[in-house]
Amino acid sequence: MVGLFITMEGPDGAGKTSVIKELLPRLQAKTTKNIISTREPGGSNIAESIRGIILDVNHQEMDVRTEAILYAAARRQHLTDIVLPTLANEDMIFCDRFVDSSVAYQGVARGIGVEEIRQLNQFATAGLRPDITLYLDVPSEVGLERIYKARGERQFDRLDQEGLAFHQKVRQGYLALVAEEKERFIVVDATAPIEEVVEKCYNSIVEKFPQFFDK
Amino acid sequence: MVGLFITMEGPDGAGKTSVIKELLPRLQAKTTKNIISTREPGGSNIAESIRGIILDVNHQEMDVRTEAILYAAARRQHLTDIVLPTLANEDMIFCDRFVDSSVAYQGVARGIGVEEIRQLNQFATAGLRPDITLYLDVPSEVGLERIYKARGERQFDRLDQEGLAFHQKVRQGYLALVAEEKERFIVVDATAPIEEVVEKCYNSIVEKFPQFFDK
Repeated sequence: MVGLFITMEGPDGAGKTSVIKELLPRLQAKTTKNIISTREPGGSNIAESIRGIILDVNHQEMDVRTEAILYAAARRQHLTDIVLPTLANEDMIFCDRFVDSSVAYQGVARGIGVEEIRQLNQFATAGLRPDITLYLDVPSEVGLERIYKARGERQFDRLDQEGLAFHQKVRQGYLALVAEEKERFIVVDATAPIEEVVEKCYNSIVEKFPQFFDK
Repeated sequence: MVGLFITMEGPDGAGKTSVIKELLPRLQAKTTKNIISTREPGGSNIAESIRGIILDVNHQEMDVRTEAILYAAARRQHLTDIVLPTLANEDMIFCDRFVDSSVAYQGVARGIGVEEIRQLNQFATAGLRPDITLYLDVPSEVGLERIYKARGERQFDRLDQEGLAFHQKVRQGYLALVAEEKERFIVVDATAPIEEVVEKCYNSIVEKFPQFFDK
């Protein structure tokens, strides 16, 4: 028996952060195992340094392939520092974003190509895959409206078309992944009230892996 | 007509730095084109930031695959910032280390595997290859002796076996590459006096690409 590797995915504005905040305490209350909650990119010393390069506002000239490679580097180090030791310890890891994000954002939306991003990440992960992936699905208009509202910056009716087109590509990328791997993905309608979203996530995990939730 | 892409490779202690210092002025004197001299990892703003992460002494826990991915990231950015614009401008780029270094060091000596490192770098370079590669060959004992002498740290007779074994693997990695691509590589005996090494490098480049050296 090894640990359980859970990931959460979704376009911006799907509400991952809010859902994780409510979901994790409920999962932890149901198990004697430790649940380590982490995020990508980052999550360990070197991975955070790499995250800093990716997000540095002075790095406007960053090439899209460089960005994709740096995400893979942060992922690899995060894997060796945190994910693999946790799984070896038979505990649970709950990771906010993983390879699927790179496929949807860099592979599809940025146009690098799904297969190229997969091969790059195959090198980074050496084949490790999540046991279950919660995909929070949200129509692009709704997702963007949430983002802009949270920022207090501007209203949806002033939304630029480029932002909408990009968001739609990200979502299409995710939906293609889901269609390909129905076993691994749990699709959750993220336009539902948050209590319902959390409930669906919670039930999906506990029902699929009862051996981990025996408390 | 596009520019000329020259790389120099070799194990540590082959004397690349000294050779480049004498070779470049001679090449520049023979051409009306610009010769841009650069190095890996690094050579541009973002690439130098990535280099900083690779070389940070506080990053002892860095995984070998993370290191290989970071080299590929620095390479990609260096390519888009410097190499490709120089070639598009029909000038010459002279690069101290490129993909072959990753194959020899990470692929062979660190044991990740030649094919895996090649695929990773295929993503980074999108297939760009040097027009000519000067390989400075040096027996491992000689290379290490030079390094230790330069550092003033210790004598060769106190050399640890791990250092020697690693250096030998790097060299074997290079020799396998050379055997595979005889057209691209110029093998130079780096135990010869530096004047001879420089002369051989100079002649090899000028004779193979006379159209660039018409002055």
